[in-house]
Amino acid sequence: MSKQRPAVDVEALCCSPLMRRPLSADESTELARMFKALADPVRLRLLSLVASHAGGEACVCDLTGAFDLTGPTISHHLKVLREAGLIDGERRGTWIYYRVRPAALGALATVLTASALPERVDT
Amino acid sequence: MSKQRPAVDVEALCCSPLMRRPLSADESTELARMFKALADPVRLRLLSLVASHAGGEACVCDLTGAFDLTGPTISHHLKVLREAGLIDGERRGTWIYYRVRPAALGALATVLTASALPERVDT
Repeated sequence: MSKQRPAVDVEALCCSPLMRRPLSADESTELARMFKALADPVRLRLLSLVASHAGGEACVCDLTGAFDLTGPTISHHLKVLREAGLIDGERRGTWIYYRVRPAALGALATVLTASALPERVDT
Repeated sequence: MSKQRPAVDVEALCCSPLMRRPLSADESTELARMFKALADPVRLRLLSLVASHAGGEACVCDLTGAFDLTGPTISHHLKVLREAGLIDGERRGTWIYYRVRPAALGALATVLTASALPERVDT
């Protein structure tokens, strides 16, 4: 199963104070791609359902009950999240089990908080 | 000048472990609207330029040099960021000066990190 991994390694930027310097065109393109995957209410709810599910993982079979959507539609949204690098999927038997990728989500969070928080001083 | 403030107060959710419980439909709709504003490379670069600019604020006059875009196009993108609650603008003389809204960005960051980080134990 193909995975479209980022051209720019956003996770490697996790410790860069991105908001303290202008983003490059490549960085902003890659980050925008990841934010676009989050710019949908169904995908956000799916992400929260996967993250908060027992054991931190869930299959489509665990998720259909929360939506008035078909299994294939939910699978499509999960694929978008996966291709953006925000979740991983692992096939076990009949189902693919999904879990969030904390490093990817954390990297996006850092982009948003580096400007918001005072510079951290480690003592 | 009208501002479209959120129906759900996302900033008030800043301390909720959103990823430890499923998001509601209303929450996910509001959050998706904010992430959609970030899902564009030009707007992300603008946000980083405003945030990293001297004094933490910038006008369109400070921003046009970084893009091969017209002033009105940049103003449009700034308007999208403003309507999403991610930046504020204040008119002083000829120009509107923009600065990021740390509480809004921080609230989005919390949504992304609550699942990624171990539960914090305050001692």
